[in-house]
Amino acid sequence: MPLAQRSGDSSEARYCGAEVGFSDDIQNALAFALGGQFDFIVAPLTDPEYRPSEGKAGPPPFAGSDLVLSPSQWSSHVVGKMSAWIDLDSPDAVARQDAELTLKQELSWATHLSLQACLLPTPRPLECGNYARCVNQMLQGLSNLQLWLRIPLVAPELQSVEGTAEEDVAFLKRDPVSGKPLNDSWEWWNMFRSLCEHHSQLSVALDITASLPSPGSLKRWTGEPLRAAIVHTSAFLTNKRGYPCLSKRHQNFITSLFSHNVQIIVSGESMHHVDGIDPTTASSESSANGSDDGLFPKHPLKPYLEYIAYLYRRMDPPTEQERFEIGYRDFLQAPLQPLMDNLEAQTYETFEKDSTKYTQYQKAVFAALMDRVPDDETTVVLMVVGAGRGPLVRASLQAAKQAGRRLRVYAVEKNPNAVVTLHSLIKLEGWEDLVTVVSCDMREWNAPEQADILVSELLGSFGDNELSPECLDGAQRFLKPDGISIPSSYTSYIGPITASKLYNDVKSYNDLAHFETAYVVKLHSVSRLAPPQEVFTFEHPKFTGGKVDNRRYKKLLFELPEDTGSALVHGFGGYFDAVLYKDVHLGIEPSTATPNMFSWFAIFFPLRRPVYVPAGSALELHFWRCVGPSKVWYEWAVTSPDVSPVHNANGRSYWVGL
Amino acid sequence: MPLAQRSGDSSEARYCGAEVGFSDDIQNALAFALGGQFDFIVAPLTDPEYRPSEGKAGPPPFAGSDLVLSPSQWSSHVVGKMSAWIDLDSPDAVARQDAELTLKQELSWATHLSLQACLLPTPRPLECGNYARCVNQMLQGLSNLQLWLRIPLVAPELQSVEGTAEEDVAFLKRDPVSGKPLNDSWEWWNMFRSLCEHHSQLSVALDITASLPSPGSLKRWTGEPLRAAIVHTSAFLTNKRGYPCLSKRHQNFITSLFSHNVQIIVSGESMHHVDGIDPTTASSESSANGSDDGLFPKHPLKPYLEYIAYLYRRMDPPTEQERFEIGYRDFLQAPLQPLMDNLEAQTYETFEKDSTKYTQYQKAVFAALMDRVPDDETTVVLMVVGAGRGPLVRASLQAAKQAGRRLRVYAVEKNPNAVVTLHSLIKLEGWEDLVTVVSCDMREWNAPEQADILVSELLGSFGDNELSPECLDGAQRFLKPDGISIPSSYTSYIGPITASKLYNDVKSYNDLAHFETAYVVKLHSVSRLAPPQEVFTFEHPKFTGGKVDNRRYKKLLFELPEDTGSALVHGFGGYFDAVLYKDVHLGIEPSTATPNMFSWFAIFFPLRRPVYVPAGSALELHFWRCVGPSKVWYEWAVTSPDVSPVHNANGRSYWVGL
Repeated sequence: MPLAQRSGDSSEARYCGAEVGFSDDIQNALAFALGGQFDFIVAPLTDPEYRPSEGKAGPPPFAGSDLVLSPSQWSSHVVGKMSAWIDLDSPDAVARQDAELTLKQELSWATHLSLQACLLPTPRPLECGNYARCVNQMLQGLSNLQLWLRIPLVAPELQSVEGTAEEDVAFLKRDPVSGKPLNDSWEWWNMFRSLCEHHSQLSVALDITASLPSPGSLKRWTGEPLRAAIVHTSAFLTNKRGYPCLSKRHQNFITSLFSHNVQIIVSGESMHHVDGIDPTTASSESSANGSDDGLFPKHPLKPYLEYIAYLYRRMDPPTEQERFEIGYRDFLQAPLQPLMDNLEAQTYETFEKDSTKYTQYQKAVFAALMDRVPDDETTVVLMVVGAGRGPLVRASLQAAKQAGRRLRVYAVEKNPNAVVTLHSLIKLEGWEDLVTVVSCDMREWNAPEQADILVSELLGSFGDNELSPECLDGAQRFLKPDGISIPSSYTSYIGPITASKLYNDVKSYNDLAHFETAYVVKLHSVSRLAPPQEVFTFEHPKFTGGKVDNRRYKKLLFELPEDTGSALVHGFGGYFDAVLYKDVHLGIEPSTATPNMFSWFAIFFPLRRPVYVPAGSALELHFWRCVGPSKVWYEWAVTSPDVSPVHNANGRSYWVGL
Repeated sequence: MPLAQRSGDSSEARYCGAEVGFSDDIQNALAFALGGQFDFIVAPLTDPEYRPSEGKAGPPPFAGSDLVLSPSQWSSHVVGKMSAWIDLDSPDAVARQDAELTLKQELSWATHLSLQACLLPTPRPLECGNYARCVNQMLQGLSNLQLWLRIPLVAPELQSVEGTAEEDVAFLKRDPVSGKPLNDSWEWWNMFRSLCEHHSQLSVALDITASLPSPGSLKRWTGEPLRAAIVHTSAFLTNKRGYPCLSKRHQNFITSLFSHNVQIIVSGESMHHVDGIDPTTASSESSANGSDDGLFPKHPLKPYLEYIAYLYRRMDPPTEQERFEIGYRDFLQAPLQPLMDNLEAQTYETFEKDSTKYTQYQKAVFAALMDRVPDDETTVVLMVVGAGRGPLVRASLQAAKQAGRRLRVYAVEKNPNAVVTLHSLIKLEGWEDLVTVVSCDMREWNAPEQADILVSELLGSFGDNELSPECLDGAQRFLKPDGISIPSSYTSYIGPITASKLYNDVKSYNDLAHFETAYVVKLHSVSRLAPPQEVFTFEHPKFTGGKVDNRRYKKLLFELPEDTGSALVHGFGGYFDAVLYKDVHLGIEPSTATPNMFSWFAIFFPLRRPVYVPAGSALELHFWRCVGPSKVWYEWAVTSPDVSPVHNANGRSYWVGL
């Protein structure tokens, strides 16, 4: 049964499994585990003694026929564990052939049983060519079966002395050919999945023992396709009452796994004798005594399960913002093109609900008004350009009221549908004397007078990506020379991320264009490998006497933290921060993000081919904002450690229409 | 006029150009060069003083209007030289903008003039992101114009001390970000073209001065898209009579360029005053005196041109084999599938002409007969499996006659069309008593008796790739236990190559399948980066008691010679060597290739993405021969320095039918 019943919780993470040994009687093995409150077992499908080259003819010694469990039992409660002796990169050709044949037989049997997932044995450190070739062949033909490659979180060699791994970031032992650190188990995974071309049905099951790697090293896994974590009983400490518990770092890691939909599997011999159960006698073979529900003995791993369930239940319930965002996590969306397209009512509705954003705007207008006019004798001309259905008009009027200043407002909006709503709002609120509605594109409007303050909300996730610069350059014609623009400036930020899921989603379109497109996405199961850096800044107003040049070029150098090790970069997370007025800012750059704001997710710029960044290397990114007669677009390229092609040449795949 | 008139010579290399300075009067500049026997000029299109940011409105100061030359003169005799001051990676934003605008104007003008090629200025060492982005944008829209990126063969810094470059393979100065050697000019090219995604209209013009790099470094360029070599007058020595000449190494390099269709351009001030011409006075501006043809003074660069022409004329005329092969050079062909398809008469005709091959077979049969029977009393049963139209039958009978041995020949052939020819041959030659024709697949034939000798020619360019192993395993049923197979064994070889042209040809199909297919190709403009290594060996007969396992797996490690520097690997050249009988071999592995044999070209296994191999790194290749119920295929993957996906999983793109 699930670790907890939380309302609306559909996370896979609420299911917990137990790794069991080979049994002729899988029916009993499963019943025993379910009786111990586990949701599923990870069980070998074949007798571990079986070797095709030594055997006689006939079918392999599978763990029972397909009839011993019902189809739904097989598929819901059993993860197939491929024989652990399988070693496809053995120097011994017979061992390789036995391994290949057995793996194929077992996977074929697992498919026959409609299992959801199979656990593949750990590959040799950086020596997995033949194993990966064989798995890759099978991946081409799998329908739904997921393959979980078992990878130790810390290489066994580094686990020997307790806790050393945490400090060891040098991974001193290097592969003589590639120079890669042999002891960094992430490298094993990376080589394997690269050979299998990032296949979406290949994911990771991490073995967790007492040692944890450095925080940077650990962080990499968040962006990888992690499906399961096998927590060994040896990972547990003992609390005062003799019960198993985990170290603080382990607790934090397990909790973060829950939030990324990772299932926990408990594995190993019980090392905690609690509730009078002696785990050395209470095994699945023993007959019923001291039972939980009268049928089975208490499961020896149950104390571990209970601790895991405790961690699960202990998590904070999701905030309102989290509940809103959960459905959007790691889901690619095409960015809005509000200049070319007219937004729909639904979209206005959603964005208008973002009270934090409008509070910030109100603060900014308030501060500007206080600076602008020393007393309330003068009427200030304030123009909202891109007024939509009126939220900035409301925020501005509220700020004026608060400041005790008189306003004359022009609400300029190019979408005729929004203008209809705007008119009714004004009537409803009785603002007829205060607000003039102008149904016009701000770049073309002939304003009857000059404005003191220009207020706009034209920012996209990457700041300028919805063409705020071009719109405001057009609108500043009717701003007084000493007038104020709110926002007064905005800056885009970008940083490299591991984002396996996003990469695969882009790849699944199977064309170049999608690899050269930016996506709005709530980044969740990603690993931010280095702090985002500033890209482009735009300031308003910008009186240059001529046409403002909004083309930009920036070269960025990202250094990964020393304790990260190597990593794979699937693309870049983009953000913005805007100065609305003086110290009133608004933004989504992670380190300075405005809290409780949901109007913007991040923007994701993919790479056509993920870039492997070796430990200690820097990543060099070039970013361009290009401007043509009818469109604006970005191009991007990586020049170190690898050289990528320039993405999106001439905006061939992705552009924003002027 | 061309350097020489050689019969059948259609090489671009016979045209030689001169690099000239900016002139208002390009008509006169061209006439002067043509008068000096040059075929074309490389001339700036714009006044070098021009800077858009400083200029007044109006069109740029182009070198004359398009009307000063006829369209065919522009296109046949002028290569546009882009302004040398263009520096798109300048830290100065105004300089960058001037550069971008000018480059675009000049290329647009060159397109208007229908020029065939433009020469682009040398990029900054490993700092060409913005330049490449700009060129890449323009490449997307070019129709026929070729862009030649000017790259010094030896970085200017290494040219300072004469001859040092030759020894300097360390390129000690490294880029602080990428760690790449800043002084290896090949790296500049590689970064630039990688950013431009190996665009087929982007190629190299190499500047050649007095220094040459190490042989390994030089060799890399053979596989690159080299269109022109700009030989500076400073590269020349002076012979006893005061005339310019080149060092032996320069001569060899220039001659090798000729054979790869590279055009020579002479550049620089004349440093040799020969024929009474003082080059300091004889410039294109001076009026006619001491002229060649009464119109112009003798061209100051003519002595250099004459020396280049001398090198060109001095080349050996092509051999018969070269004349046969020339049309096939670097041309991708699908490998034959003689087992699945029936060959056509034309194909038999071509292959039967390869007398060297059949001489080797005759030698092998002769040696086998001498070993097999001590005297001529016994009749030897010899079966030709895959007899085709009979060439091996003829070679075998000739060997028997030579050896004084009696033969009974069975000619087994599955292609019914070839069998028709076979019957007429036997009648024509009067071999009715000696030869029995069997119209049957050797894998199915019920032989009436056991053979002493089995002769076959089922080898493909990669040895086993036309399924010789499977055919001969099937045929060995009717070979005596002590019988002989000719060939008795064969081995495939493979080695990494730079093959820019082949890569682009594969890429132009724009699909995955062509990147996972092997091609038969006469490798010519490629650079073999490391000696080929053995891959798979098959021996015949192979009596195992059961089915022979013809699956194979080999891991290969290639180390590039120390003096090569870094290189780009586009794929692998494959070859074979066969032992026909004892010391009689046959093969195309370059170091042991049988001379004057044209039946086999190499085989090319492409990589989906070229692999950059840094200086001093090794390349690790995995190669598999996989066997299914109805087909045989290869899979391949690189695991160092980069990890590629496994190519051709399950033979999805390329396979040979059983």
